[in-house]
Amino acid sequence: MVDYSRFLSSTGRQLAESAIRRMGTVVAGAADLVSFAPGYPAPELFPWQELKDISAVLLNGSDPDALQYGPTRGYAPLLETIVGLSAERGITASPDQLLITSGSQQGIDLIARVMVSPGDVVLVELPTFTGGIAAFRNAQAELVGIPQDAQGIDLEALDAIWQREHGAGKTIKLLYVIPNFQNPTGTLLALSRRERLVEWASRRDMLIVEDDPYGSLYFEDVATAAETRPLRAGDPEQRVLYLSTFSKTLAPGFRVGWMMAAPPLVQRFETAKQSTDLTSGALDQLVVHEAVTRGVVHALAPQLRALYARKRNVMEQALRARLGERLTWSQPKGGFFVWATLPPGCSDHALLERALAHGLVFVVGSAFYVDGTGHEKIRLSFSAPSVDRIEEGVKRLAQAFADVPD
Amino acid sequence: MVDYSRFLSSTGRQLAESAIRRMGTVVAGAADLVSFAPGYPAPELFPWQELKDISAVLLNGSDPDALQYGPTRGYAPLLETIVGLSAERGITASPDQLLITSGSQQGIDLIARVMVSPGDVVLVELPTFTGGIAAFRNAQAELVGIPQDAQGIDLEALDAIWQREHGAGKTIKLLYVIPNFQNPTGTLLALSRRERLVEWASRRDMLIVEDDPYGSLYFEDVATAAETRPLRAGDPEQRVLYLSTFSKTLAPGFRVGWMMAAPPLVQRFETAKQSTDLTSGALDQLVVHEAVTRGVVHALAPQLRALYARKRNVMEQALRARLGERLTWSQPKGGFFVWATLPPGCSDHALLERALAHGLVFVVGSAFYVDGTGHEKIRLSFSAPSVDRIEEGVKRLAQAFADVPD
Repeated sequence: MVDYSRFLSSTGRQLAESAIRRMGTVVAGAADLVSFAPGYPAPELFPWQELKDISAVLLNGSDPDALQYGPTRGYAPLLETIVGLSAERGITASPDQLLITSGSQQGIDLIARVMVSPGDVVLVELPTFTGGIAAFRNAQAELVGIPQDAQGIDLEALDAIWQREHGAGKTIKLLYVIPNFQNPTGTLLALSRRERLVEWASRRDMLIVEDDPYGSLYFEDVATAAETRPLRAGDPEQRVLYLSTFSKTLAPGFRVGWMMAAPPLVQRFETAKQSTDLTSGALDQLVVHEAVTRGVVHALAPQLRALYARKRNVMEQALRARLGERLTWSQPKGGFFVWATLPPGCSDHALLERALAHGLVFVVGSAFYVDGTGHEKIRLSFSAPSVDRIEEGVKRLAQAFADVPD
Repeated sequence: MVDYSRFLSSTGRQLAESAIRRMGTVVAGAADLVSFAPGYPAPELFPWQELKDISAVLLNGSDPDALQYGPTRGYAPLLETIVGLSAERGITASPDQLLITSGSQQGIDLIARVMVSPGDVVLVELPTFTGGIAAFRNAQAELVGIPQDAQGIDLEALDAIWQREHGAGKTIKLLYVIPNFQNPTGTLLALSRRERLVEWASRRDMLIVEDDPYGSLYFEDVATAAETRPLRAGDPEQRVLYLSTFSKTLAPGFRVGWMMAAPPLVQRFETAKQSTDLTSGALDQLVVHEAVTRGVVHALAPQLRALYARKRNVMEQALRARLGERLTWSQPKGGFFVWATLPPGCSDHALLERALAHGLVFVVGSAFYVDGTGHEKIRLSFSAPSVDRIEEGVKRLAQAFADVPD
């Protein structure tokens, strides 16, 4: 038997696994499981008929590009389309600032590889997206968490931590943030803090990675489009590296996301992508481009907002009815998640174990913390399950609680 | 203006660009250019109607998986399908040895990241595929070239170089080879050498990366399926990491490739892929699976062999007629490329410059050499252009030669 361990790189030895993806594997293997785990979009709003029509046209054979290798930068008309979508969100961009990525996860990964040397500090929100944690850890970043409150990242704490790390001689490369309906907390970063955050980056000569998959999924009863204004929309010095995706606004089965950054950086990311996967899928890119051009994506947005708001209501109502005395949470203003605090003495892992026994899966809070804390938190995703399954899942969660001694 | 250079990682500073991809960019920007540069498949055999039918069924809405996130490992029925395809090529595999990759380029990249630490030696054929060179260089490998002859990699030189590097205290991680219709030389590795190569890996405790995109594209007048038997088919100790793709046997616009390795390694690659792009495209995987299941891929193979053999004939005939006294080459037994030697005193870069002026692009030979040599070689790809364009391209090549003093 070959001893493969000696063939591993330092990265290969200490690869970080995404807790969310691991949960996804659990889900795939079980029969009657309710999943509040991965933030999968609601399949009931996938625009099947429109995508079928679009595919039929693209596969009529008149444009060989639909099935051929394409440029690493991305399908040129799609780049133009994204310029247009960006303008609607207040962002002035040009194609030379854009790169199509295989989902925004690839954007994070390219940034980690091109910008983070082993030991470099990356500042992240505490808690933050596990896929971001994994990508930066795999580049051997030292991740330092910045606390958040109900308005988002704490700017005073941010600067104090920056000064501490800087004073300790660390190379601080990036701040990674999710301003809109943060994963996992659901927090919407206050507009006033957005401005101050970009000013802070200028003052401290920092770059910000803005991950924005949920921006258009605000809930109209409690939030407005204006409140989701990207940092990148007020970023005269181009200090913000902006990431987004069609995974939440169209469908994740097309691996089509994008990154936006200053042209000298985008050129580096493009070169890194060359050796990573040559190019993102041609047909996927053409389908997405056509779906935007035909108005499918725009028509879908208000439906998605309404559906996810309704699912949030169902989950909150069920939680209040069954677990109102055990769990506390803030009402999500958008996105996919309820971020709940457990009662004293109850740990996320112990609760998950009980929940699995009752046929429910969620993600433990501690998976989102880079400092080993967060065991009093759980993330409940309401996006994918039907209304009935949300209610069933909360019922199972209540059963799991009944097994856990207070 | 922000100085972005200080934000780059050591990798980001020295990213290796693929010469082939760069040529692709040149092609995309020109009007009446004949391209012998990238090894793009022939668009005239893309099975449009079949793929249109398959997409229509998959997008009828009955299977939400078609547009959802999927498991990182890959769509389970596709893994089973690849087990079946592998068996046809003499490879006994199981799904736990497989990982779906976003093209085989991603397989090379995952191997480089998980296995190569900065300064590790990777042995490669001299010359070899630029995408392999770029991926290993971006992991900061030290690439050491092994000469080839008409039968493929020189096993005596291989062991001598292994001993030299080993003696010098180097950590030698991998040997990267393309046994079938090697890129760029077109060489078919002799069967006897295949066996000896796997024995060598066992004797020297080495792992081999076998990149096999062209295996089924042998030319029936001069080669047989038996001669393309993968190393992995005779690999009792699982020392071969096997990579292949549907890019050349169906279409590259679906980014669907696969890697096969011992389960402990595949688990690492899967974890690395999680943070790289989460999963390959769901719809792409379902379409490819259905195309194999319906027999589209099998029906296509003999047509592809016949078409590429015919294009090879056209290119060779034109080269003999117009440049028989200037160029020498071995007849390709399969694959996409004529690998030609220039007359003394003529350099690849000088010729390319002249060729571009005449509206022809190819890849300079030196791009494939990790030791800075190869300036007397050029790679001419006959796969994508039509018969007419092949003839026109060779005419332009002859014009370019007419401008270059002997």
